[in-house]
Amino acid sequence: MKKVVTMGGGTGNFVVLSGLKNHDLELSAVVSMADDGGSTGILRDELGVLPPGDVRQCLVALSDSGRLLRSLMNYRFETGGLEGHSFGNLLLSALEKVTGSFEKAVEEAGRILSIKGKVIPVTTHQVRLKMILNNRKMLGGEGEIYVSEEIDQGYKSIYLEPFAKADTHAIDEIMNADLVILGPGNLYTSLIPNLLVEGISKALRDTQAKKVLIMNLMNKKGQTTHFKTSDYLRELKKYLGKDVFDYILINNKMPPKELIDLYLQEGNLVENDLLNDPRIILVDLLDHNKSDHKESDVLSKHRSLIRHDSNKIAQEVIKLVNNL
Amino acid sequence: MKKVVTMGGGTGNFVVLSGLKNHDLELSAVVSMADDGGSTGILRDELGVLPPGDVRQCLVALSDSGRLLRSLMNYRFETGGLEGHSFGNLLLSALEKVTGSFEKAVEEAGRILSIKGKVIPVTTHQVRLKMILNNRKMLGGEGEIYVSEEIDQGYKSIYLEPFAKADTHAIDEIMNADLVILGPGNLYTSLIPNLLVEGISKALRDTQAKKVLIMNLMNKKGQTTHFKTSDYLRELKKYLGKDVFDYILINNKMPPKELIDLYLQEGNLVENDLLNDPRIILVDLLDHNKSDHKESDVLSKHRSLIRHDSNKIAQEVIKLVNNL
Repeated sequence: MKKVVTMGGGTGNFVVLSGLKNHDLELSAVVSMADDGGSTGILRDELGVLPPGDVRQCLVALSDSGRLLRSLMNYRFETGGLEGHSFGNLLLSALEKVTGSFEKAVEEAGRILSIKGKVIPVTTHQVRLKMILNNRKMLGGEGEIYVSEEIDQGYKSIYLEPFAKADTHAIDEIMNADLVILGPGNLYTSLIPNLLVEGISKALRDTQAKKVLIMNLMNKKGQTTHFKTSDYLRELKKYLGKDVFDYILINNKMPPKELIDLYLQEGNLVENDLLNDPRIILVDLLDHNKSDHKESDVLSKHRSLIRHDSNKIAQEVIKLVNNL
Repeated sequence: MKKVVTMGGGTGNFVVLSGLKNHDLELSAVVSMADDGGSTGILRDELGVLPPGDVRQCLVALSDSGRLLRSLMNYRFETGGLEGHSFGNLLLSALEKVTGSFEKAVEEAGRILSIKGKVIPVTTHQVRLKMILNNRKMLGGEGEIYVSEEIDQGYKSIYLEPFAKADTHAIDEIMNADLVILGPGNLYTSLIPNLLVEGISKALRDTQAKKVLIMNLMNKKGQTTHFKTSDYLRELKKYLGKDVFDYILINNKMPPKELIDLYLQEGNLVENDLLNDPRIILVDLLDHNKSDHKESDVLSKHRSLIRHDSNKIAQEVIKLVNNL
């Protein structure tokens, strides 16, 4: 059975894993640990736990248990002191307290949810993502970076504090994989935070696995405004050390104009400017189904309107896997 | 396989069920739904859910899953907005929200915890326990009644508001049981609240099952101060309509004097004044093990020092069951 590793934040991993789960693969999700917004941020601050949100999404994507248990994991309390907390975050945080280890908590939650595959935190250090902009403004966490609209005016650095080593399991998974998938996901808050963890970029350079980049559909306003495919590759190369990708999976289907218009306040479509690059696979990856991805945390109402189709991504990945 | 039903609040049921779980019985716990203190009270007020605390304790007692999952259920968050909430309470409340029904929530939690037996809320109505004292003071909830030290000066009435019908499953369990066990448990906040639910006392009068009362070890100061066995029977008879018990299980082992002294601020030992009653079974039911019942919510530090031994209770119950 071929071994496929996905890398990203929660939502991107969710989309990729949900499709791949239905195929005969050995799946591992390596998950960013820089999240500090919303329910996750409150739990980090108040309980001193590691960030559960992105891990939760991957667990749900890989869960083989019934719909009810998956809905439970994403259920958010709506009132009182628990308001905004998703139940799955509380499960992971309580398990971390009871077991004394976030890794064991993830393992145990995986057992409760009968997951198919593995979910591995990229690091088990308590890290914060920081960014210094060209205008000297310091963005002090992933949550702050996520909402910033000044990043496209230039930044001096993005880094994790404190310096964090990769979890050895994460390195092992990458080194032993047949295929590693990066993306889709927000460039500065979901993809790059993984590459900033000591050991990850080297593993991606060294592994014999084929590396696939799944290109985002949309740019993020004020961050990757008007980015084209080559801009994403250039940014990622800064942190990867070299352009490691063997394949670049790009959607070629135009979303309905009314959705693009709705979306304009959040960002514009990513344009592909690498027309003759042999690594590029241009296919329809668009989800034409208008219903909500109820099981994923949608990052915003509009963003959920233009999104990848899990099964279309899975089909393309399976083609690649079959050719290995 | 003989069918045994336990009735009471959370802690009493926990003690009885923990011992009986290891025997070949069909177990059902009928659980009081009047709890409104602590984490449970906050969840009732803020989320509008039914009280999870007592149900949680029964689920843990019946759980066949590993120690970790049982510890998780009783884990209490220690800081921040979640402080004081036990994880199991949050699980039940989230499941109630997701399934839309407390009964389904209990069923699903039972599945997650691989329970041996059934846990059945005595009613699924939102009820509050109220008490009017002779001095005209109104105690507006189980939590208030639990801490009152004026009840032994006389009370006019104790009732549920609003009027609540028993869950049909609870009635069915009692009617189809071979043996029903009431107690141990706080008289006014754990035992009587079950009997105030319309249909329960009638079922206890009508069922062919043998009825066992497990007498409390200790009186509660200001409530059952200096009560003897006959006082408990008299109070219960008020709500049962008649003295339904076929057996009365009473501890005859004196706890160490230093524990009794420590306990004095909370209450004194229950004395048995029914010496010639043929229904009485006088045996050592005392837990001589000084370690804490870590899996139970101990109601107070001192109370946990003088307590029933789950296995000794189970042995006596099994003798009764074998003679049916």
